[in-house]
Amino acid sequence: MEKWRATTNLRRSLKSILNRQLKFRYLNGKRSCQSSFNLIRDCKSLGQVNAIQHRCFSSASTLVQRNPSFSTLNSDDISYFKGLLGEKSVIQDEDRLETVNTDWMHKYKGSSKLLLLPRSTEEVAQILRYCNSRCLAVVPQGGNTGLVGGSVPVFDEVIVNVSSMNNIISFDKVSGILVCEAGCILENLISFLDNQGFIMPLDLGAKGSCQIGGNVSTNAGGLRLVRYGSLHGNVLGLEAVLANGDVLDMLGTLRKDNTGYDLKHLFIGSEGSLGIVTKVSILTPPKLSSVNIAFLACNDYSSCQKLLMEAKRKLGEILSAFEFLDTEAMNLVLHQLDGVRNPLPASMHNFYILIETTGSDESYNREKLEAFLLSSMEGGLISDGVLAQDINQASSFWRIREGVPEALMKAGAVYKYDLSLPVEKMYDLVDDMRIRLGDLATVVGYGHLGDGNLHLNVSAPEYDDKILEQIEPYVYEWTSKHRGSISAEHGLGLMKANKIYYSKSTETVQTMASIKKLLDPNGILNPYKVLPHSLNS
Amino acid sequence: MEKWRATTNLRRSLKSILNRQLKFRYLNGKRSCQSSFNLIRDCKSLGQVNAIQHRCFSSASTLVQRNPSFSTLNSDDISYFKGLLGEKSVIQDEDRLETVNTDWMHKYKGSSKLLLLPRSTEEVAQILRYCNSRCLAVVPQGGNTGLVGGSVPVFDEVIVNVSSMNNIISFDKVSGILVCEAGCILENLISFLDNQGFIMPLDLGAKGSCQIGGNVSTNAGGLRLVRYGSLHGNVLGLEAVLANGDVLDMLGTLRKDNTGYDLKHLFIGSEGSLGIVTKVSILTPPKLSSVNIAFLACNDYSSCQKLLMEAKRKLGEILSAFEFLDTEAMNLVLHQLDGVRNPLPASMHNFYILIETTGSDESYNREKLEAFLLSSMEGGLISDGVLAQDINQASSFWRIREGVPEALMKAGAVYKYDLSLPVEKMYDLVDDMRIRLGDLATVVGYGHLGDGNLHLNVSAPEYDDKILEQIEPYVYEWTSKHRGSISAEHGLGLMKANKIYYSKSTETVQTMASIKKLLDPNGILNPYKVLPHSLNS
Repeated sequence: MEKWRATTNLRRSLKSILNRQLKFRYLNGKRSCQSSFNLIRDCKSLGQVNAIQHRCFSSASTLVQRNPSFSTLNSDDISYFKGLLGEKSVIQDEDRLETVNTDWMHKYKGSSKLLLLPRSTEEVAQILRYCNSRCLAVVPQGGNTGLVGGSVPVFDEVIVNVSSMNNIISFDKVSGILVCEAGCILENLISFLDNQGFIMPLDLGAKGSCQIGGNVSTNAGGLRLVRYGSLHGNVLGLEAVLANGDVLDMLGTLRKDNTGYDLKHLFIGSEGSLGIVTKVSILTPPKLSSVNIAFLACNDYSSCQKLLMEAKRKLGEILSAFEFLDTEAMNLVLHQLDGVRNPLPASMHNFYILIETTGSDESYNREKLEAFLLSSMEGGLISDGVLAQDINQASSFWRIREGVPEALMKAGAVYKYDLSLPVEKMYDLVDDMRIRLGDLATVVGYGHLGDGNLHLNVSAPEYDDKILEQIEPYVYEWTSKHRGSISAEHGLGLMKANKIYYSKSTETVQTMASIKKLLDPNGILNPYKVLPHSLNS
Repeated sequence: MEKWRATTNLRRSLKSILNRQLKFRYLNGKRSCQSSFNLIRDCKSLGQVNAIQHRCFSSASTLVQRNPSFSTLNSDDISYFKGLLGEKSVIQDEDRLETVNTDWMHKYKGSSKLLLLPRSTEEVAQILRYCNSRCLAVVPQGGNTGLVGGSVPVFDEVIVNVSSMNNIISFDKVSGILVCEAGCILENLISFLDNQGFIMPLDLGAKGSCQIGGNVSTNAGGLRLVRYGSLHGNVLGLEAVLANGDVLDMLGTLRKDNTGYDLKHLFIGSEGSLGIVTKVSILTPPKLSSVNIAFLACNDYSSCQKLLMEAKRKLGEILSAFEFLDTEAMNLVLHQLDGVRNPLPASMHNFYILIETTGSDESYNREKLEAFLLSSMEGGLISDGVLAQDINQASSFWRIREGVPEALMKAGAVYKYDLSLPVEKMYDLVDDMRIRLGDLATVVGYGHLGDGNLHLNVSAPEYDDKILEQIEPYVYEWTSKHRGSISAEHGLGLMKANKIYYSKSTETVQTMASIKKLLDPNGILNPYKVLPHSLNS
């Protein structure tokens, strides 16, 4: 108790400065295509990057063959698209194609010869109508920040990038409902709403590059899900173009609408394989003026769980993030990233928790958080803790949690798994994996504890089949056994299309394939992704 | 300001008593099959009830013909079902069939000769497999509390009622995730969770009879939607049986799962026409200890809107209900219901607002609500107001809002419309309707203002085609013009299946019909409902 008080006795009003923390949170760790590529080039030799590429592509190529029913682009196609979109929106330049053929981690690379930049739904519709009639395969693309090879071509698919469709269409301040085009960058929407006194219900590390159409198409999760729920709850309407060019206007702006089947949900999280999302209507919460952040230590995982339960009950309506990392993750961050220090330096702890609260009353919410922390410390759930005293501390706490992926990449080879598991079982997998791998590699666990989302990462000096054999299929089997999800928030993409049965039953996958066949009979939309390759062609 | 203070100067701690208000809220207005039938019989002559039936059935019969491709039940079918389910679960008794053939408002009545009561998913699967092979039409039924003729047969469909599947399967106190069978009555789930320190994310007037499978199948809205969002956000998983007997196991218990298409959403709100929901996994929020209720008056609709905006911003995370009724609704309640009085008696006001807050700290939340009310009164948004001082006052405030439907039924004939509209436009329709109808009828507006959900009701001494001609199709056209929904939370059922185009585009409805055809090729599941009859047969 005294210890806790000692760390917070310099407390002062954070209202004005903490209000701004959402703006700066990712200043250093911001993910964008450009900076991420540089990051990889900075932290790895080119040989290492190539090794990653080689691994992925060799793996993919053993599984996927180009679908021979797809046509190959010809000069008539190019002429058609130039006539439709104008010269400037039909890109064949090799450098620009290199960028859009490659995912942001440089793990996946396609060989598309054509990038199209439509400016309207009607142009998207005409592109798809033409491609469908010609049986030309298409990859829908937004900010290209995906992690599972879903947003780049596998072979020579035409890339339809909606970046030019980036208008805000309307915002209703009474209801908080925003309607915008799919190419709006998330950070721009956040800035726009900030001026209106609202926030987006989702926030991601990739916000500087990712686009709302891609967010919706991949059902992006992120940092606010514990508070505001998933996009299935927050997206009120969509406009989507089907493979045959039909436009489905489902762009409602209503919180309640029970007229027929709610088809928009088919397009949320189907990774562009059922249609291209062109417009989005989304419910945005009011911006609340008080944000507080605590960084805590727990001795064991059981205490982390109990702390989560207590936080849900005692912080209730103001809890907006509950993130965790283990001591291995903390060690990596401290060793790999410049300028990062552990705010609880006395000794290394087994687990670290970041709690964020957001509410409408600064003094009350800070007191509430403090009372919660005090009782948790008295109850033995927390072994140490510190409450951010200013904008720099708040930033440095988030930097630790957000820095884990970057630190992992700097440390060498990394095998990444994005899993949903029942919270009480979640960390058993990390422990099991440590036993399996022994000295072969370092196993790191972190993620969105409040959502039951574990990011399991295995770090090693270099890629080694012996390590991979110890991880897969064990990690998928373990997840399946506990009715978890092998993709919590990243999607299946190319990487895990064939792994779907670990999380979904045969009948369910078969029904998905039937719906794909119904909406996209020629299979031109984002082929080789999401569904097993045996059902995809 | 003084006035406000005067109404609240007797304030005392409500913590212990208000915590119980959710339990008693519907004590008087509880909707159950039995009491509702009595209600109709009490408040109308039998002749009036018959008139309603006649109106509806004559209207339906002009639109719907029995699908001749459906078989007629024979003795072999009965033998099969008895062998499968046992004698007691195969009901042919006329009295029991009368009940399940009739909806709770006595508006719709079918002529089914068979009620089946399966006790397991496997039994549901075998029933459907058999019915599909025989081309026997089926009506899935839960608590039969729907308002649009969706849960009773139109002709001789077999009724499959899941009431006997009413087990709670699991509850995880760490995550708050409840898994249960479809036949669990909502109120029983609420009671179960109350003992665990949690609540259901939905609450309805019909909770004493309605079942969770029906709630999910109709995407029920209700009183907590403004706080916790729709079932598309709260339902984490489902098990559903398709028309051919295939069981889709989508019963995940994870907050995040991006593995393939999220098919469960097809079954949320499709009114049993795509499959029968047999199990549900749902995220339940922790029960918070502080509930406060204010009953307010506004001079005009513009003030109601502004008050909603202010409430969202200033009450933020603790706002749990924002309901409204107009002076015509209040008059009806005061005249028709015994023991109801206006808590703001000085003069009649144009609009009344009920605000509920729910949070984790009684004294703080009450102060917060008081401060909000004070500033709203100072700003001229509220013309009068009172904060519930005890359990009786809280109950009496809810009784006014919840009593409107009952008062309308007692007043005579009533034409009911459940609409979603942009909040700023919503009340214009009520004003327009008053001008159109003049002295012909009384137009009443009330509903869930926080969700943009208007219950527009037209009350008259008796049914009159002149009145109906003034209302329809005007009300649907008006709603369509403003991109509203002709069914906010009640569904389409039989009543509005042909009206779907007022809220959905041709392409979207056609896609719905394609999905219906894909999942239920013989169209045996809940025929004549949801989709236009031209596409349904």
